[in-house]
Formats: sequence, C-alpha cells, structure tokens
Amino acid sequence: GGAGREGGGFPFEDQNLLLAAAYVSDAQYNRNVPFETSPRAIRLYYFYNHWTMQVAIYFFICVDLSLALFEEPALFPLPFLATSLAEVLCLTAFFGRLVHFAKVTPQMVFWKDMKNICIMVTIVLTLIDLIIYGSLEAVNVHSVRWSRALRPVFLINFPESRQIRRTFRSIRNTLPDILYVFLLFMFSVLIFSLMALKLFGDRGLKTVEGLPYFTNILDIVFELYVLVTTANSPDVMMPAYNFNWWYCLYFITYTIINTYIFMSVFLAVVYNNYRKHLKNEIRKLAYLKRHKMIEAFNILKVKVGTEFVVTEAQWRRLAKVVAPHISSPHLELLLRISDEGQKGHVDKVSFLRLADLLNIQVVTINIRRHPLEDWMPRVYRSSASLLVQRMVRHRIFVWVYDVIILINAIFIALDERNPFISYAEWLFLSLYIIEILLKLYTYEPRAYFGRRQGTHKMECYVMVGFLFFFFLARKYNSQQILDIVLILRILRLLRIIVSIQRFRVIVTTLINIGPTILTFGGLVLVVYYVFAIIGMEAFHGKVRFSDPNFTSPDALVCGNPALKDSAFARDRYCKNNFNDLASSFIVLMELTVVNQWHNILSETVHSQAAKLYFIGFHIVVVILIVNIFIAFILEAFFVAYSLEKSEVETAIEKKIQELGVGIQEEEMQDGMLVDNVDAKDSGFSGDDGDNKRKDLKGLYFRIASKKYRTVDALLQQMFESEIAPEEEGPSLDEILNFSPGDLYPKNPNFENSA
Amino acid sequence: GGAGREGGGFPFEDQNLLLAAAYVSDAQYNRNVPFETSPRAIRLYYFYNHWTMQVAIYFFICVDLSLALFEEPALFPLPFLATSLAEVLCLTAFFGRLVHFAKVTPQMVFWKDMKNICIMVTIVLTLIDLIIYGSLEAVNVHSVRWSRALRPVFLINFPESRQIRRTFRSIRNTLPDILYVFLLFMFSVLIFSLMALKLFGDRGLKTVEGLPYFTNILDIVFELYVLVTTANSPDVMMPAYNFNWWYCLYFITYTIINTYIFMSVFLAVVYNNYRKHLKNEIRKLAYLKRHKMIEAFNILKVKVGTEFVVTEAQWRRLAKVVAPHISSPHLELLLRISDEGQKGHVDKVSFLRLADLLNIQVVTINIRRHPLEDWMPRVYRSSASLLVQRMVRHRIFVWVYDVIILINAIFIALDERNPFISYAEWLFLSLYIIEILLKLYTYEPRAYFGRRQGTHKMECYVMVGFLFFFFLARKYNSQQILDIVLILRILRLLRIIVSIQRFRVIVTTLINIGPTILTFGGLVLVVYYVFAIIGMEAFHGKVRFSDPNFTSPDALVCGNPALKDSAFARDRYCKNNFNDLASSFIVLMELTVVNQWHNILSETVHSQAAKLYFIGFHIVVVILIVNIFIAFILEAFFVAYSLEKSEVETAIEKKIQELGVGIQEEEMQDGMLVDNVDAKDSGFSGDDGDNKRKDLKGLYFRIASKKYRTVDALLQQMFESEIAPEEEGPSLDEILNFSPGDLYPKNPNFENSA
Repeated sequence: GGAGREGGGFPFEDQNLLLAAAYVSDAQYNRNVPFETSPRAIRLYYFYNHWTMQVAIYFFICVDLSLALFEEPALFPLPFLATSLAEVLCLTAFFGRLVHFAKVTPQMVFWKDMKNICIMVTIVLTLIDLIIYGSLEAVNVHSVRWSRALRPVFLINFPESRQIRRTFRSIRNTLPDILYVFLLFMFSVLIFSLMALKLFGDRGLKTVEGLPYFTNILDIVFELYVLVTTANSPDVMMPAYNFNWWYCLYFITYTIINTYIFMSVFLAVVYNNYRKHLKNEIRKLAYLKRHKMIEAFNILKVKVGTEFVVTEAQWRRLAKVVAPHISSPHLELLLRISDEGQKGHVDKVSFLRLADLLNIQVVTINIRRHPLEDWMPRVYRSSASLLVQRMVRHRIFVWVYDVIILINAIFIALDERNPFISYAEWLFLSLYIIEILLKLYTYEPRAYFGRRQGTHKMECYVMVGFLFFFFLARKYNSQQILDIVLILRILRLLRIIVSIQRFRVIVTTLINIGPTILTFGGLVLVVYYVFAIIGMEAFHGKVRFSDPNFTSPDALVCGNPALKDSAFARDRYCKNNFNDLASSFIVLMELTVVNQWHNILSETVHSQAAKLYFIGFHIVVVILIVNIFIAFILEAFFVAYSLEKSEVETAIEKKIQELGVGIQEEEMQDGMLVDNVDAKDSGFSGDDGDNKRKDLKGLYFRIASKKYRTVDALLQQMFESEIAPEEEGPSLDEILNFSPGDLYPKNPNFENSA
Repeated sequence: GGAGREGGGFPFEDQNLLLAAAYVSDAQYNRNVPFETSPRAIRLYYFYNHWTMQVAIYFFICVDLSLALFEEPALFPLPFLATSLAEVLCLTAFFGRLVHFAKVTPQMVFWKDMKNICIMVTIVLTLIDLIIYGSLEAVNVHSVRWSRALRPVFLINFPESRQIRRTFRSIRNTLPDILYVFLLFMFSVLIFSLMALKLFGDRGLKTVEGLPYFTNILDIVFELYVLVTTANSPDVMMPAYNFNWWYCLYFITYTIINTYIFMSVFLAVVYNNYRKHLKNEIRKLAYLKRHKMIEAFNILKVKVGTEFVVTEAQWRRLAKVVAPHISSPHLELLLRISDEGQKGHVDKVSFLRLADLLNIQVVTINIRRHPLEDWMPRVYRSSASLLVQRMVRHRIFVWVYDVIILINAIFIALDERNPFISYAEWLFLSLYIIEILLKLYTYEPRAYFGRRQGTHKMECYVMVGFLFFFFLARKYNSQQILDIVLILRILRLLRIIVSIQRFRVIVTTLINIGPTILTFGGLVLVVYYVFAIIGMEAFHGKVRFSDPNFTSPDALVCGNPALKDSAFARDRYCKNNFNDLASSFIVLMELTVVNQWHNILSETVHSQAAKLYFIGFHIVVVILIVNIFIAFILEAFFVAYSLEKSEVETAIEKKIQELGVGIQEEEMQDGMLVDNVDAKDSGFSGDDGDNKRKDLKGLYFRIASKKYRTVDALLQQMFESEIAPEEEGPSLDEILNFSPGDLYPKNPNFENSA
C-alpha cells in the first residue's frame, strides 16, 4: 500500500496507474476537483486529499472563527496582539492551502472559480482591516473590526465544505423566485398599512404604553411585518378591537393572507426549488462519477480480442493504490464480482462499478460459541442455565424491563426528598445492572457489542457513563457532573421507544437525517456568526447582566436607566445581550424562534437600525433557512414513505445477491458475529484458483438496509440504477451545465404531478 | 325543458330516459348518491337535487348554527322559547330532508351510512337536551345546553357538504399516522420534562412572578408543551439561563427537536396523507363518473349493425332532460362532436363524453363595432379620435396610470390634514374617471365589461363602489361608510400587481385556490363552533369589557378583582372573553395564531381545564387543520409549477380543437365580444341539416385556460386523460373500496420519488 505517497520518478506505467487511481478514488468519494494530469500535479493532488491536510484546514477554520470569543467584546479577553497573531497564522494556512490547490488544478479553472477569488479577496481585506485597526489602536482610536464578519467565507469556500456550499447554492437559486413572492408579500403589507393608516390613524387611539396608535406609516409597516411573525399578536389589534368590534376583521384578513397564505407560499417556493436543485445535483454527481470511471478505464484499457478490457494484474495494482489497506480476501471478493467468468481481465461495465464496490462494506460472518460454554460447558448447558437463557431471550423479558423503566420514570417524577423513593433509585440501578449481566450471560459478548446492535450499545454506554459520572459526582460533589448523571439517568428511558415497532420507522428516519442536520448546523453557524459580529459591533454594552438575586436598582434596569419600567427589565431579560459571542448566539436563537423578539431587542428597539437588523435576520433565517430545513425534513420523510413498501437495489447489489456473496443487513441475527475483515486475522493470501471458494467462506459483502441510507444516497442509487450500465453519459461540459429546469417532465402525469 | 319536474305516469321509454338523465346529470356534477331505480324514486331524486331544496337546507343549517348568537350567553338575547322554537323548526327540516333521502336511496345503503345515523342521533339528542333544559329552566334551575356543540354535525353530514366531509375524512385517515408521531413527540416532551425537573427543580429558582420554577412535573410538561408553540419563549428559559449559562443548551436542544423537527414531521405526515388521499378521491370520482355514464349508455343503447349505439333522437331527448335550458345551437354543437360522421347515432366512446361536454362553456364570438362608430362615424373615425384610441391602446398608457397610482399611494401615506394633499385626492379621482371614460370611448363597452376581463371589471366595480359610498358618506357622515370608502380607495392600488407579468402567475394560483379556501372556512367554522360553545359554557362571564377610556378601578381589572396586576388587564385584553359567540370566535382566532395565548386565557389559566382546553384546541387546529391548510397550498403550488411549462389537454379538448369548434381562452382578445349563448338571441331553432354549418358560425366551445383551473379539476382531468376512452374501469364495489395505499408505485423511480 501507500504507493501514491512515495513520490518521484515512477515509470510511465506507474504514472498512469496513479492517475487512474486518482479518478477512481474521486469517484468513490464523490469528489469533484478538476486536477492536472502531470505526474507532479497528481502527486500533489494525493497530498492535497490526505486526511491530515483536511483536519489541519478545519482546525485553522475553527481557530479563526473562535477568535471572536477572545476579541473585544470578549467572553475571555485576550490582548489584541495575541488574537491578531493567531489570525495572521490562520490566514497564512488558508493561503498555503490555496497555493497548494493552484498547483493541483489547471490555471484556467483556478482563476475562473469564484471560490478561490473569494478566499483571496477575504484574506487581503482581513489583512487591511487588521493593519488599520492595529494602527488606530496604537494611537488609542477605537474603530470597527468589520472584516470579522467575513470569516465564515473560509468555511464556505474551501472545497471540503461541499454540503454547506450546496445548501448555499440552493438558497441562491431560490432567490429569484422568492424575490417575486416577497415583493408581492411586501406589496400586500404596504396595502394593508395604508388601510390601517386611513382606518385607525385619525381615531386618536393609544397603545397600552400610551403612545399614538398607527399614525406613522413606517411604524405601521413595521408593526404589520412583525404581526406576520405573530410576535405582537394580539397586542397590535387590541386598541382597534377595543374601539370597534368590526376592526378585528381587518386583522383577521391580514393574518390569513399574510401569515398563513404567504408564509405557506414561501415554503412552497423554497421546497419546490430545493427539490429540483437536489435532484439536479444528484444527477450531476452520478454522471460525474461515471465520467471519472470512464477516464480511468480509458487510461488502463488494453485490447483483448475485439473489446477493450483491463487486465487482472493491472486491476489488482489499481485496487491496491486506491485502497492501500485492502485485505487480500476482500480483493479476491471484488475480483470475483468484477471478473465473473474468471477470464483473467475485467470488462468495461464491470470496471465502471469498482468505485461502488469499494464503498460496500465487507464482513465475515461466524457463529461463535459463548466463552462460558468453552470454559465450563457442564454448568452453562445445565437445565437451570438453559432456562435462564430461554427466559432472557423471551419477549416477556423485554416487556418486563419496559415496565420497570416506566415505573422508574414515575419515581423520577416523584419527590426525591422522600427517603423511600431515593432508595428505590438504587433498586432500579441494580435491576439494570442485573439485566446487562443476564444478557452478557446469554449472548456471545462480541455479538452483543456488535456493530449494528445500536440499542444494546446505547444501553451499555449510558449505564457505564452513568456509573462513571455517578461515582465522580460522589467524589467531587460537582454540580455539572451531577447534572450529567441526571440526564443520563433519564436517557435510559429512551429504550422504550426502540422496543415499539411503529416508532422505529420514524426514529430511523430521524436518525438518518442526523448527519445532514449537521450541515444545517454549519449553515446556521455561518449566518449567526455574521449577524452576531454585526450585532456585537452595533449593540454591545447597551445592557449589563448582574446576578439575578442582586436587587440593586442598577441591576433591576440591566445597568441602563432607559430601561426603567420596560418589559425587558421586568421580565429579567438582561442576559439577552450582544456583549459577547456566546450571548449573541443565544439572542439570535431566540430571534429565530421569533416570539418576544421586540422585548429581546428592546434595549435598542427605538432605533431604526434594530428594526432593520431584525427584518434582515428574519428574512434570511426564518423565511429562507428555516423553510429549507423544513423542506429537507419533508423530503426525507417523503422519500422514506415512498420507499416503505418497495425495495431499492442497485445493479451491483443484484449481482452480489445472484452470486451469493452478499448478506442483507436485516438477516444478521442476534447469535451471529459481525466483524470487519482484518487481513491479519485471515491466513489467506495466495492466488490459487482452486482454493478460492473454500477460503471465501464466511466473507460477504454487507448490503446496507435501505432503512439506514440517507436521502442523498437513496436518490443517487435510484438515479444510477436508471442509467444503463454501458451508457457513457453526457460530456463533461454538458454535465457541468445541467440546469434544474430540464428535470421537469414535459408532460406531467397523474402519478408524478406535485 | 323541465321534463324531469312534471312527474307521474310516463311510459316505460320515458322512465328509462329519466333514469339515464339522472346518471348523466350525476356524472356531470360529480354527485355520488346511490338511488333506487323505481320511477317514483327517480322522480323524488330529481326533486331531491333541485336547487331550491339545497338552498332551503343550507338556510336551515345557517339558522341553526346562528342560534348561538341569541342564546345565553347571547350577543343579541332572545327568550328561550323563541330560540327553542326555531331550533325545533330546523330539526324538523333536517328530519324531513333525511326522510326524503331515505325514500330515494336503497334501504340497505341508507342504514349502513354513518352520516344518516349521525344526523338521527343528533336530532334525538338535541330534542332530549331541549326538553331537559326547558323543564329545568321552568323550575329556575340553570343547566348546560351541551347539545349545542353537536350542531355542526348537520353541516358536515348532509350529502351536499362533500368538500368539508372530504377534508374531515382526510383528517380521519391521517389520525393513525399522526397519533404515532404525536406519541413520540409527547414521549420526547416527557423525557425533557423529567430532565427539567431534575436539573432545575431543586435549585430554588423563581419565575419573574416570584413563583417556584419547574418544581411540579405537570406544570413543567405544560410549560414545555407551550414552548413548542413558541408562545412562552424565551421567558420559560430566562430563570435557568440567568442562573447558569450552560442551561440554555437544554432549551436550544429542546427547541430544535420539538419545535423544529417534530413540527416539520407533523407537516410531512399530514401532507403525505393529504396527497395520497386527494389522489385516491380523484381516482374514485373519475371512475364513478365513468361508471355512471356506462350505466346511462346501457339503458339507452340499441344495436345498429355490430355495435351498440344511442340513436340521435334519443340522444337529443336525453340532452334536453339533463340540461332543460340548453339552446338549440348549443345542442347541435354537442351533436357535431358526438356524432362526428353524421351517422344518425352516437357510439359508446362519444356517448361517455357527454357529461364532460355539458360542462364546457359555449360562447358566441362576434366582432362588434363600437356604438359611437354607428352613431357618429365621421367624428369617431376622425384622425384626432383615432389618435386618442391609439394612445389608449398603447402600453405607455397603462404605465402612466401605474405611475399615477404609485404617486397616489404616496399621497395616501402622507398627512391628510395638509389641504394641498387632500385636494390632490380629488385630482386622482378625476384622473381615474377620465381613464375609464377614455377606455369606454376606445373599446366596445360590452367587450370592456366582458366576462373574463377581470381587471377592467374590478377597476370599474371599485370605482363605482367608491363613488357610491363616497357620496353616501358625504350625505350621512357615517363612520362605517367612510371606512369602506377608504378601503376601496386603497384597493385601487391592487391594479399594479396585475400589470406585472411575474406576479400574475402567483396571483392566478392564489385566486384559483380561493374557492377551496372557503372549504377550509367551513371546516374551521365547525371546529371553532364546537370549541366556542364549550368555551362559552366553561368560561363565560369571567371578565367584563368596559369602554377602554373609562378608567374606573373595575374597568382596569376587567371586572374581575383576581386580575389585578395581571398581564391580561395590563395589556387591556378585557375584550378577549367567552361572553358571546362573536367574541369567542375572535379569541379562538387569537389562539390559532398562538402568540400570547397564556395571557389571553389568563382569566382562567390557573385552572387545569383551561390548559386542557388549549392543548386540545392546539392539537386539532394548529397541528391538524393548519397543517392541512399548508399542505393544500403546497399542493396547489406544486401542481401549478409542474404544469407551468406543459399543456394539459383532455381528449375532448383535443377533439374540439381538431374539429375547429373550440377557442382557447387566451385567444380572446380585447376587441372580441364574448358572451353566453342565449337561445332567444339566436333565431336558430330548426333541425335543417343544410343550414347547420352556416348557423353555427360564431358559436364555439370555450376551452378554459389551464391557468384558471383548480387543483382538483386539473388532477381529475389528468387522471381521466390517462384512462383509455373505451375502458370500462373497475366494478362499483372495487371503486368504493379504493385505498390510498395502492397509489404508491411499487418501484419508485428517481422522477417520482418524493
């Protein structure tokens, strides 16, 4: 293994092999970086894709983003010199990565790519800002560190953040459609504002605070915009409603049109674009993968008879370069699928599958005996012991423990100061430990802790974690550790969900979307970061938080006399401020939920800037990002529902099943040991054809259950199964210019409409 | 015409004709009432479907529902005797309708139908309640009129309320799926509640009101449920957040899981079921229609040569019975499509289309000259006059008026006490009147007010209404009339939207979904009514509203000393009460929007009943109905988007186009007169074959633009175009037992997945 990392002076053959391996590896991981094909560029490309480089770059991005915690206004203040040095270090790393990339990719592509330009401009701007701020600071003039809002650019624009960038691209593509709906929506708000001005402006009505009600058109527009978010309902209506019963019709009409209909239309537009865009991206990925595999084939092909093929020896060398740590039995299994007729070469259709084959996990399946059975067979096989084992395997055993957990839940809810109840907790703890011991006694331990036995593993981790923190808490008596113990104690209750079949479908889908939710985490982080930096520059220091029990007059008004008698101070919101990055994030989270936002921002709510800040935040986060999030969850569930009764099987999986070298994940039962193949474990290494069959015994491809596949993976598999295996696909230019618009069927039918 | 209404003593032939006509008529209007085929039952069925009967029954339903306005607690009090007499009258009418229905439908079907049982049980229960309440009232004991909550049963269960019932059925079918998600959701809330109890219960924290924070498990569950609705965010978090920064992570996790993810899952489940159910219903409707047309054909068919057909004479008589007011040219046009080869009979495939043919509007198209051109041709055709006409037809003319409207909008927003601005309004008024006069001068007036020229009509109505109310307001100086004038003045601004092409797509879709939104109105009415009656019985009289300017101490606490210093009284919410039906509806509307609901219900919020009331309302209205509403809007927009680039044309429309007797709605230009055919207008009446072609000149089918079709109609047309024209379809039993489950494709592909 490791051929790609030794570098320098390969013969021509090996250069070709390295290039083909790079294509296959890119196809395997869905990487889409165009690279130069010169030997030096290929070696640099291997280095560029090395995991250490990726970890390093993410480390520097994290450091760069977290600098905001240490800069003024800081959670943990550090001198300007320290933070600026760290920032310069990060910028150097980013620049280095960019130079590395420039050496790998063709010059034309590099300079055409907006991502690279963005990074360079941001680096320059950040340096300029650092210098200006530093020099002004040196002469004691305080200025604004505006370049800090640009830091998320690094997170978005490095080639590794494909997922986040895809979501951003999805947002960008949605913008034109959203814009028209938004204009219509704002037009509707304006029309209603004019009506409100005419209807209520001259009535001399007063709000609860005694201010004039609906007399200024800008205030009205703002109040009505906030009514769309429901945050000021029904307060904004009450003065008019108290004045005349009929005026409530105005507000009801407004709410129906703008809150219910327009907000749904926003969701419809976002979802429609999200779906189109997702399917387009998946089509693109699938064809690019095919394209790369064809490139690899064309490099290695030789003519045998009338057709072009790849020889077995060449194929083996390629597989070893792509997956240096592949075991010999694994390699033989792959070859058995790829060279079915054992002709000594791999044809084109089989070769194109290599990337997918490498992605399928390979497992050994053995039925092992319980260690206790080896150790003391008489005792373990005695009738009493067999009875215990039968009992533990019985469904009633699970039900009994479900009931115990429910009783435990009730006890947790009861008052713990009662000594009887606090001792009962010890009883439950022992019952759980007894359960784990009984299971370990009945099942083979390695099977019990096996890979996919998620439930058992979770149970054990929770129990072990619980016991660990429990004794830790006893020893150090720390509040935080005790809190963790409490949470773990309650997490044990989650077991009940897993034992109910109907819940499992929902839970599985929720678990599948977990990784992609992290992508949204990245997206939200980017947007929050920008808004937090702006918020900190604009609003920091307006309020001060003091200990809530401290009742000095200053603490009661959050250190700002202007807040006397305000709802902000009355509701003890002093901690909702922009005084540091962490607090800002919490405030933004509260603004995302929208409720009470006018109170939360009331420290500054009388300024027009705060209103614009809120409206901007609302449009970006609530109208765009939250709707994309909802669209994403809807799509995940719809795919899950539409597949509930059907079986998605790719061509390779069918082939694997036909040859009898695969095993369905669902087939793996309790008693079986499931393990990764380790080359050292198996003595197999030769190429002896006759021995193959015998030695492959117990080595299988594991066909992942469709239940555990993500939406993207499912859709990509579906699309790939619809491309004919020998199809070359469109040209690279065509692929890169795919537009979501072509995806609509020309003549929609009843089945696929909507 | 009117053959069906004369009754009694038809010969056998005519009985058959009446039966066939009943089938065709049911197919035409998508009616699905199974009826007996005896002559008497058929005549009763004609009477049952007569529009006067339907209007009468809706009138009684309205009276019955509105009785709650006059009963204690009443908006307009009436003595118990009056309301109970009215109710008995309504019940009699409902019972009469039911008896009528029993005579029409087969006995077996009648007694198997839950709708009829429901109505009967409700009538009996209402009578019992009336008697008990009346007798108790007579001895001065006040009891509860519980049967009032049953009144919406009549609205739902009469066969005419198909749309509302369909939505209810959709909700009922969604319930099992929703239930599992809801259980999981409640389980999640419970787990978090237990955590909250353990984490915060022993800290001795206090809420802003000084009450203990998170110490009682039931209170915690309720507070966390409310947090899902975001109504108490961030207040519920502040005590814990103020105590320790880290605790906010608990609330953020909770919000992400329960507010964002679970609420989206609810939407996914509701939407998925809504879509399946909608498609299933449409498939059922389409096959039932086909089935009825086949029944009608089988009654009238005679054998000519080798195939069964309907003779032209019989066909004419049938058409006359189904559509008594059909004009002769219209009938000839239908025959021309149905008997294309003029063979003197209509074959099966053509016969099956009759119901659809009758639904297509028929119009005459003439190009008429302007009346002024007839009256004073010299002046009208002078070069000055032609210049004016060309000017008015020019696009710039529209743009100029758009700009004028925008300027007008700005003037409306400005302060009206400035005399210059208030005079400017007169200027704008005259400009608008000049515009209308100019247009009337240029365009033929009947074309200008033509049916589909929605924009012009709206303009004129708004202007006429404006002038009418304006002078009314001047004369009577009434506030309400002045308000209407103000609103109409601002509605003029809507014109701008219509002149921007990109907006028109969205606006058209929004207008198309208008009628169905009324169905939701019916649904919401039913649910609100039930909750309002319960609310009035439980909470009426707890607060009193007094004039807001009246500052007596009693008025400041809404007549309830317990509300002293409460947010309810402070925010002047006294009018949010359950003291009469109208106020209850407003409160329920505010609860639908959710925000501040704990304040709105705070008059009674310390009782557990109010909490249960709110949770029940939230589950039914927000989780079910609002989500179905969103699903409906999403579906409407998705259908609109997927059809945006394609043309949906049914088989008949294609045929009509081929024969050149149809006209596309889009083709109708400004200068053309579009009118309904009126038999009296046209002198045509004979059957003379030779004259046909000549007389048909100017008479066309109008092919409605797909833009103006509702989602249901579009989907039904799509489905019907996918059934082969000669296909018999499944049997009646199979049709009635269609399940949404069969609709899923067995092997979903990339195109139709999700």
